[in-house]
Amino acid sequence: MPSYFGAIKRQRTLEMVNIGAFHHRLFSSAATNAKRNPAFSTINPDDVLHFKEILGHKNVIQDEDRLLAANVDWMRKYKGSSQLLLLPRNTEEVSKILKYCNSRCLAVVPQGGNTGLVGGSVPVYDEVIINLSTMDKIISLDKVNGILICEAGCILENLNSFLANEGYIMPLDLGAKGSCQIGGNISTNAGGLHFIRYGSLHGNILGLEVILADGTILDMLTTLRKDNTGYDLKHLFIGSEGTLGIITKIVVLTPCKLSSTNSAFLACSDYLSCQKLLAEAKQDLGEAISAFEFMDCNSVEMALTHIEGARNPLPASLYKFYVLIETTGADESYNRTKLEAFLLRSMEVGLISDGVIAQDLNQASSFWQIREGLSEATAKAGAVYKYDLSLPVDKLYSIVEEMRARLGNIAKVIGYGHLGDGNLHLNISTTHYDEKILAQIEPFVYEWTAHHRGSISAEHGLGLMKAEKIHYSKSEEAVKVMASIKKLLDPKGILNPYKVLPQSMLQS
Amino acid sequence: MPSYFGAIKRQRTLEMVNIGAFHHRLFSSAATNAKRNPAFSTINPDDVLHFKEILGHKNVIQDEDRLLAANVDWMRKYKGSSQLLLLPRNTEEVSKILKYCNSRCLAVVPQGGNTGLVGGSVPVYDEVIINLSTMDKIISLDKVNGILICEAGCILENLNSFLANEGYIMPLDLGAKGSCQIGGNISTNAGGLHFIRYGSLHGNILGLEVILADGTILDMLTTLRKDNTGYDLKHLFIGSEGTLGIITKIVVLTPCKLSSTNSAFLACSDYLSCQKLLAEAKQDLGEAISAFEFMDCNSVEMALTHIEGARNPLPASLYKFYVLIETTGADESYNRTKLEAFLLRSMEVGLISDGVIAQDLNQASSFWQIREGLSEATAKAGAVYKYDLSLPVDKLYSIVEEMRARLGNIAKVIGYGHLGDGNLHLNISTTHYDEKILAQIEPFVYEWTAHHRGSISAEHGLGLMKAEKIHYSKSEEAVKVMASIKKLLDPKGILNPYKVLPQSMLQS
Repeated sequence: MPSYFGAIKRQRTLEMVNIGAFHHRLFSSAATNAKRNPAFSTINPDDVLHFKEILGHKNVIQDEDRLLAANVDWMRKYKGSSQLLLLPRNTEEVSKILKYCNSRCLAVVPQGGNTGLVGGSVPVYDEVIINLSTMDKIISLDKVNGILICEAGCILENLNSFLANEGYIMPLDLGAKGSCQIGGNISTNAGGLHFIRYGSLHGNILGLEVILADGTILDMLTTLRKDNTGYDLKHLFIGSEGTLGIITKIVVLTPCKLSSTNSAFLACSDYLSCQKLLAEAKQDLGEAISAFEFMDCNSVEMALTHIEGARNPLPASLYKFYVLIETTGADESYNRTKLEAFLLRSMEVGLISDGVIAQDLNQASSFWQIREGLSEATAKAGAVYKYDLSLPVDKLYSIVEEMRARLGNIAKVIGYGHLGDGNLHLNISTTHYDEKILAQIEPFVYEWTAHHRGSISAEHGLGLMKAEKIHYSKSEEAVKVMASIKKLLDPKGILNPYKVLPQSMLQS
Repeated sequence: MPSYFGAIKRQRTLEMVNIGAFHHRLFSSAATNAKRNPAFSTINPDDVLHFKEILGHKNVIQDEDRLLAANVDWMRKYKGSSQLLLLPRNTEEVSKILKYCNSRCLAVVPQGGNTGLVGGSVPVYDEVIINLSTMDKIISLDKVNGILICEAGCILENLNSFLANEGYIMPLDLGAKGSCQIGGNISTNAGGLHFIRYGSLHGNILGLEVILADGTILDMLTTLRKDNTGYDLKHLFIGSEGTLGIITKIVVLTPCKLSSTNSAFLACSDYLSCQKLLAEAKQDLGEAISAFEFMDCNSVEMALTHIEGARNPLPASLYKFYVLIETTGADESYNRTKLEAFLLRSMEVGLISDGVIAQDLNQASSFWQIREGLSEATAKAGAVYKYDLSLPVDKLYSIVEEMRARLGNIAKVIGYGHLGDGNLHLNISTTHYDEKILAQIEPFVYEWTAHHRGSISAEHGLGLMKAEKIHYSKSEEAVKVMASIKKLLDPKGILNPYKVLPQSMLQS
């Protein structure tokens, strides 16, 4: 059978919904809590002149429409009031910008594809926006080792297309790949669909070039797989959301592209079966698993109701849970046979109640349409409170059940996500926004997560939205060390202010 | 065919040789270069009393024989003069020790299995030795996700034995596994034989508990695969060789144990073929590769000459290069067939000149005996200058050839190592130690490595041996940031002094 599945493109982001639909019902009040740091200067005409000298006139943007687009995140949930957008073309220009901003105490916000979900990539007040999109050169590929060097502004999908021709793929895949930039992916330590297969960016990023707040160019651009000479500083910048430095170049270890992909849509009668199925799949299919997603029946019902053209792959009856497994390998017939045998065994022992393997591209797409359409579905259904939690797998679904019991019939509570990574997307859908409902959800959801040693942000980061909530997932001592490192590397606090860490810990 | 190979134990460390043989010809003069920091106090009877109160009498060691053993590294290359060895039993005791030492300005050296190769785990002067060996409890294993929590003093092999019964393995394997402790492995960011398969510890370690210099307990013990809440501090402690904190507990993501292992011993006519074979193997065998080692003919000749019982698996003629491939998988006959087909194709296109797949445990052991016996062989052959370099794979063998041309017939130059990771072990064997030969090797070898953006320490760390040589592999700016982080977290510099970073940068 030819390999249809390798070419599947997920054009819709998992979390991305129609922008307009969100516009009239924003929930977040986070943006109003942070006060502008009075130590920061405001832009004056001399500053603008200076930036024009560094970057040339056309890369210093003051046009209102372009500023508006750069001031607002894609959800239209967070909106700043920056008067200046800078488009540096190379490392030296980023360095010169920061050196100047640091000397003038001008705050900046680094921006990539602006696809983040927590308000990390837009200004809160009048921070200068430094957008990396014009730094999108692929510098080199070591074809023996699959080591790619590129600039931070490269779009993830473009990197993947380039690599595909050379027999490699990027070690991460996410819905926003058509817009998101690799520098932003690394700054937010993006997770995504293939995390279960290729793991964390901390394991895949070999080197970085980073510009510190004072303009220092920190060259950590090693292409080596092993380098035990001193502290491995690059990890500080992976996931620090642009608050410690601006990433300008990247060295990434890319996995080989494999030719065969299979998708199976399965039904389980209870959550324990989902967990057991995951354990068995890891044992039997091992590293062939490239995705292991789960959805409860409320999620699937919501997708079937609101997503145009969505069909239930298992229409005979509605089950309590659904699992979407994707396997990828070099040997098509072997991998297919192996998956089929695994599913047969799982059905025999009762772990799965029903299931279907995609026979072609269309069928695989229809499976993924349900999983990927969930955000859009909840948006269409009304107002939605969204949480991105990391929890021990055995506890992961309990919060959905507890929330359901807590809210009764005032809201629909749905749970889905990356089960293989212990990452739950908890969505609470109501007809309209209501402070009373929010008060029933928060801080309960954060307290519950903290109690079970979970994370209040699995893959989205803290950004502006959850900067003041870090204590739910990190110890006081750890946050103190983070704050001391922030002060050490960015003493004036100009890099992406009001994000990631509580303001009280930085301005004291 | 039954799986014989899964049970292979490598009882000899790759780099470990008979201790006695080394004793009379030490090369290192590094220990004499660092001056004792006059800011440090010396131990007095009140200190000893205080430690006895914390730890109980029997865990405060002043016995001469036991102190001697703890003062000297296994190579007998580095020797300190500590008068006190402490054996804490839990996190709180380590915290109390450090709090006290910091207040008294008493320097300490954290010690695990003391199997390091760069003098990192023994005192330089009179530092208090804190040995973690009594903290060796396995705390828990999440059997669904393979997440192990244990104390830092657990011996690597013991962890592997425990996990094997549960269907998991540790994501690293190295010769010293019978003695080395997981805390030391993480502190030195150990690489080892399975790095090509399971990657860096930065990707496998989920959480740590670390005691800072002032006794602060830094709880980063998450069991979550995804947690994007603030800076991921644990990475600072992975590979910082005990200079930023003492690791007391560990959370590690362990891979599933697979039942089938195959080893093949192959001959290549030139280095380019070795490189191409690696690229093809990665493409064809993918993640099934669990080791990809190479040796030049001089290495193999040396092993055959000096290792008792060593036999050439390909005796027909001597080839220029040899490659040892190990594959591991869940499906025995499939994996075997796949490896055989790959080797056949590689032979047909001329990438390999000859080769043999191990038919049983004995044959596999005899292949590995050659690779693993190399350190012992060079030690038996006479004096040896050893370098552990990370280099771009295409440049990796050039340093061996250049060194050979440079030294002419005054020394035998051999090259071997973890080709799949770009890690060369360059060994220069002579009849006796000679300052003139050393002057021809150093700083040339470091300069050459730096010129090709390699690393002067791939997997051994810097320790005392190479603390002053960090600039060959790291930029001035990066070293400055490292020094500032060291001063931030350990302002009095009590943690493992004289190691990793140049003294001039810390005492200024």
